[in-house]
Amino acid sequence: MSSPTRAPDPRPARTRAAIYTAARELSSADGEVTVNALTRRAGISRAAFYSHFSGLDELIGQMLHDMFQTVWEEGAAMHRGVASPHERVRSATAVVVAYVEQHRTFLLGALDWKFSHRTFLALIEMISVRHRHAFDALGEGLPSEVDRMVASDAFAGSQLSLIIRWLDRSEHVVAGGGEPDAAALLESTLRCWPTWYTGLQPGDDFDARGLLEAAHRVLAEQREQAQG
Amino acid sequence: MSSPTRAPDPRPARTRAAIYTAARELSSADGEVTVNALTRRAGISRAAFYSHFSGLDELIGQMLHDMFQTVWEEGAAMHRGVASPHERVRSATAVVVAYVEQHRTFLLGALDWKFSHRTFLALIEMISVRHRHAFDALGEGLPSEVDRMVASDAFAGSQLSLIIRWLDRSEHVVAGGGEPDAAALLESTLRCWPTWYTGLQPGDDFDARGLLEAAHRVLAEQREQAQG
Repeated sequence: MSSPTRAPDPRPARTRAAIYTAARELSSADGEVTVNALTRRAGISRAAFYSHFSGLDELIGQMLHDMFQTVWEEGAAMHRGVASPHERVRSATAVVVAYVEQHRTFLLGALDWKFSHRTFLALIEMISVRHRHAFDALGEGLPSEVDRMVASDAFAGSQLSLIIRWLDRSEHVVAGGGEPDAAALLESTLRCWPTWYTGLQPGDDFDARGLLEAAHRVLAEQREQAQG
Repeated sequence: MSSPTRAPDPRPARTRAAIYTAARELSSADGEVTVNALTRRAGISRAAFYSHFSGLDELIGQMLHDMFQTVWEEGAAMHRGVASPHERVRSATAVVVAYVEQHRTFLLGALDWKFSHRTFLALIEMISVRHRHAFDALGEGLPSEVDRMVASDAFAGSQLSLIIRWLDRSEHVVAGGGEPDAAALLESTLRCWPTWYTGLQPGDDFDARGLLEAAHRVLAEQREQAQG
């Protein structure tokens, strides 16, 4: 019987962290991510890997889930004191883009992982849920003809395809000595959604770069807090 | 030296067809799709498989490419005599949905294949290109502030996520003895796009079921022609 006062066994958490680190490193280093390569790099046995994850599918699903969890919590921090639901949609989207920019190399590597579209569907669902929360915050601002489930899936799908396309193009930009333009990704994403969601009119001026910088500051503060 | 009068060697085409059939059967039968399972089912060697495809990624990419090619050609047949670009957008979308409904079991199985998101990106691009053609057909009807590349990627992403979600839900519907409602998928897809693209106003009545039936008739005619 385990005593309630005993500290939790730190080993599973350490193994998990080692697997995550190995996956990030392999992914960023252009190495093929396989269970063998992961266990070699993490210095653990295959059995240890499989005691944590049923396979690569579950691992990437869990990593993306954790990343999104972090993004949304950090997004929530940015929202504090922001009054309008439209501003909250814009700043939450900016935090996602800032996060994608920060983890560009890992996410680009993850595009080469082979995983099933069940995992993709889980990712769509994670993003969809957040859009539905944002719809709820809109209250009367949500047009009555909008089907919440359909619109949230559609918004999640367009957001993901723009992110994936941006990641793919960024590789060529970097290879050509350039700097991938994340502000353009933020602006595109917001502009592909309707005015009732973002509050942006087609011709409106909109400072995507300023908003993205604010999002990066929020992420940096959160990192400092987490480390301090 | 090959003689110009000799008929082309039919074997590669036959091997390819056998691989496609095996992939469709495995996918529909809920079997795991691996190179081993495919070659066993198709009655070919691994070497023969790899002389056609670099791996499962390329196979699924090619199969989806061929399916989309067929869909768009069949869509084009439905367009003949259809005057307005808006009507063409609606009928092309209906043909895609009809095709998805017809190949539901295979596509549902394909969700479980493990493939990299490079393949997903290629799929997005295939769909994006068609949206850009439709934008061009709109002429002055395309709002000047719309970025063609961004909008086409966003529309492709929302369309794909709605299709994938519909496929996933259809499994539960069928398990419960129901019939998956493809007309609802068609209506959702069109309603998630702006009025300038589909010509549909939010409150408009719209006969999704009738349009879908017309699309099924076009697909059936094309099949008859292909077989006769």
